[in-house]
Amino acid sequence: MTTTAPSEALTPMPRIVRACRREILDRPPVWMMRQAGRYMSEYRAIREKADFLTMCKNPDLAVEVSLQPLAAFGMDAVIMFSDILVPVEAMGMALEFNEKGPHLPTPIRSRAQIDALSIPDPVEKTGFVMQVLRQLRQALAVYPEVGLIGFAGAPWTLATYMVEGGTSRNHTDIMTMLYNEPEALHVLLDKIAKTVILYLNAQIEAGAQVVQLFDTWGGLLPEPLYREFVHPYQQQVLAGLNRSEAPVILYVKGSSHVLEYLPQTGADVISLDGMTTISQARTRIGNDIALQGNLDFNLLFAHPDVLTGHVQAMLKEGGNQGYIFNLSHGIIPQTPVANVKRVVDTVKSSARALATP
Amino acid sequence: MTTTAPSEALTPMPRIVRACRREILDRPPVWMMRQAGRYMSEYRAIREKADFLTMCKNPDLAVEVSLQPLAAFGMDAVIMFSDILVPVEAMGMALEFNEKGPHLPTPIRSRAQIDALSIPDPVEKTGFVMQVLRQLRQALAVYPEVGLIGFAGAPWTLATYMVEGGTSRNHTDIMTMLYNEPEALHVLLDKIAKTVILYLNAQIEAGAQVVQLFDTWGGLLPEPLYREFVHPYQQQVLAGLNRSEAPVILYVKGSSHVLEYLPQTGADVISLDGMTTISQARTRIGNDIALQGNLDFNLLFAHPDVLTGHVQAMLKEGGNQGYIFNLSHGIIPQTPVANVKRVVDTVKSSARALATP
Repeated sequence: MTTTAPSEALTPMPRIVRACRREILDRPPVWMMRQAGRYMSEYRAIREKADFLTMCKNPDLAVEVSLQPLAAFGMDAVIMFSDILVPVEAMGMALEFNEKGPHLPTPIRSRAQIDALSIPDPVEKTGFVMQVLRQLRQALAVYPEVGLIGFAGAPWTLATYMVEGGTSRNHTDIMTMLYNEPEALHVLLDKIAKTVILYLNAQIEAGAQVVQLFDTWGGLLPEPLYREFVHPYQQQVLAGLNRSEAPVILYVKGSSHVLEYLPQTGADVISLDGMTTISQARTRIGNDIALQGNLDFNLLFAHPDVLTGHVQAMLKEGGNQGYIFNLSHGIIPQTPVANVKRVVDTVKSSARALATP
Repeated sequence: MTTTAPSEALTPMPRIVRACRREILDRPPVWMMRQAGRYMSEYRAIREKADFLTMCKNPDLAVEVSLQPLAAFGMDAVIMFSDILVPVEAMGMALEFNEKGPHLPTPIRSRAQIDALSIPDPVEKTGFVMQVLRQLRQALAVYPEVGLIGFAGAPWTLATYMVEGGTSRNHTDIMTMLYNEPEALHVLLDKIAKTVILYLNAQIEAGAQVVQLFDTWGGLLPEPLYREFVHPYQQQVLAGLNRSEAPVILYVKGSSHVLEYLPQTGADVISLDGMTTISQARTRIGNDIALQGNLDFNLLFAHPDVLTGHVQAMLKEGGNQGYIFNLSHGIIPQTPVANVKRVVDTVKSSARALATP
């Protein structure tokens, strides 16, 4: 057990950074995946005037939207508004968004297409993302306790989108490439990993205080294939980051059958999906790594008292060292905002409860 | 190790029944979930003339479609053509099928609706299903080695459809009921369990030699909730079946985090999804229960030689005692039929290979 040195009080560090480093806190930080999103009327008002990709690429709009949940609910972290496919477009793939989500009209189906992809300079090709982060740090100067989170998709997840051409139900195209042309897939994954390293280091340089790596489709593979196509590329990304500058959170959706691999990437924090409880994770991967999660996003639709009870139980389970309060999954559009506020307030008011011996 | 008594050769028992009972065989039986389906042109020809629910309810059409994969590929088992929601309609809920799948226009949202549901007499209300099974047994009289499989949805999965009103992305309605009104949900699950017991026993009476219980959405819940809302109702169903008549296969999609619960239901066979390998399952739940599965359905899109290699590896992993060759998931409509034939042929020709010491 360590305590905060008195001098740190003079240069406050964001609560989320301290949680990532497993400092003992009076309460855990709270934020929510996809907290800047369609469930907020303030967000929808902007989204009505601009399409999704325009919002990502216009720093003023992206900054405005990123800050909306802080203003409305007072989360302990702001995550930049963007999309994991932004660097994929920079690699040379056409990218659109329609009502069903992302659409890549010329998906990767050949080795020649893989060879034609570039490893883009993130400042030159995605400078707008870095601009968003710089502006957010400026805006957050008056909130030194609030952390700024950057993010990227992990190589396997980005490859899945690049090969499927969008969100897929059965993932037949990426699996066929995996079975028929594993070497080509490895070349693609390595190229994406190199892109993601540059992209995240540029985000850290631009002011991200924490970065989260999203492997949304990581849970698609059984352990023997996960070990070959998912884990090594998470490891490659983590090994290439300027880690002294910003701790790294790793989120792998559907990770319960491969949980033991996650700490081996070198991540500072494992973000749990809904299938592994905090207690189960502590038993399986130990107490030396911080955890994030994992309130069921559907609990935000429950009666307020039921919700509060679950939040309090999770605060007890998570404790005040090495724990970041979050959901199991991004907030969905229909979520009632009053319950979002209730979650944040309940976590924040837990400081006194946790302080009681 | 036991060997088949010579007398059994005179009254041959279907290979799949013998595999369920963990007899040593010269090769495992092979069939595929959703083997009577849209990937077959013979099926599409009938489907063009009749809608899905009509096909389920017209015994001659259902029998014809059920037998198509046997004629085309020579599987070791025929599964009756039907849908897990057939008994739900018999409980008193309106049921339609459209292009997106099942649609229940008046989903369960109140305790009053739950109380209004009946526990239908399966012969009176779903006699067409029993007729399909009787006709299939007649047709299969000339194929004594081919087993006839009946099936039902498990209570949690059927409740999910009844509350969501169809296939759902986020399952917010059933989860809200679970959190806000757990007692009402338990009443619903118990009523469904009682319905499923009568329904499956009627299927066994009508000639099903094996029954499979599908808990398609069982993997939606973390272990503490699975233990309360999924497992006990599988147990209740299993305890109520005329087990001496027909072995039971249990399929829970997304079961890797709760695998240890599955044998505790009393099922004879656990059907694995794609996230747990046969070897991992044997390590976790032992050798005293038979396994079914679990070739990735996407391997049916791979090069034939790649596919054959994976089938052979899986045959080696599964062995010739207590193993049924199947997929991880139902066949999808785009599947090339030549590869379906290849899988069946590879399994069938493995008898000689397995016989080699």
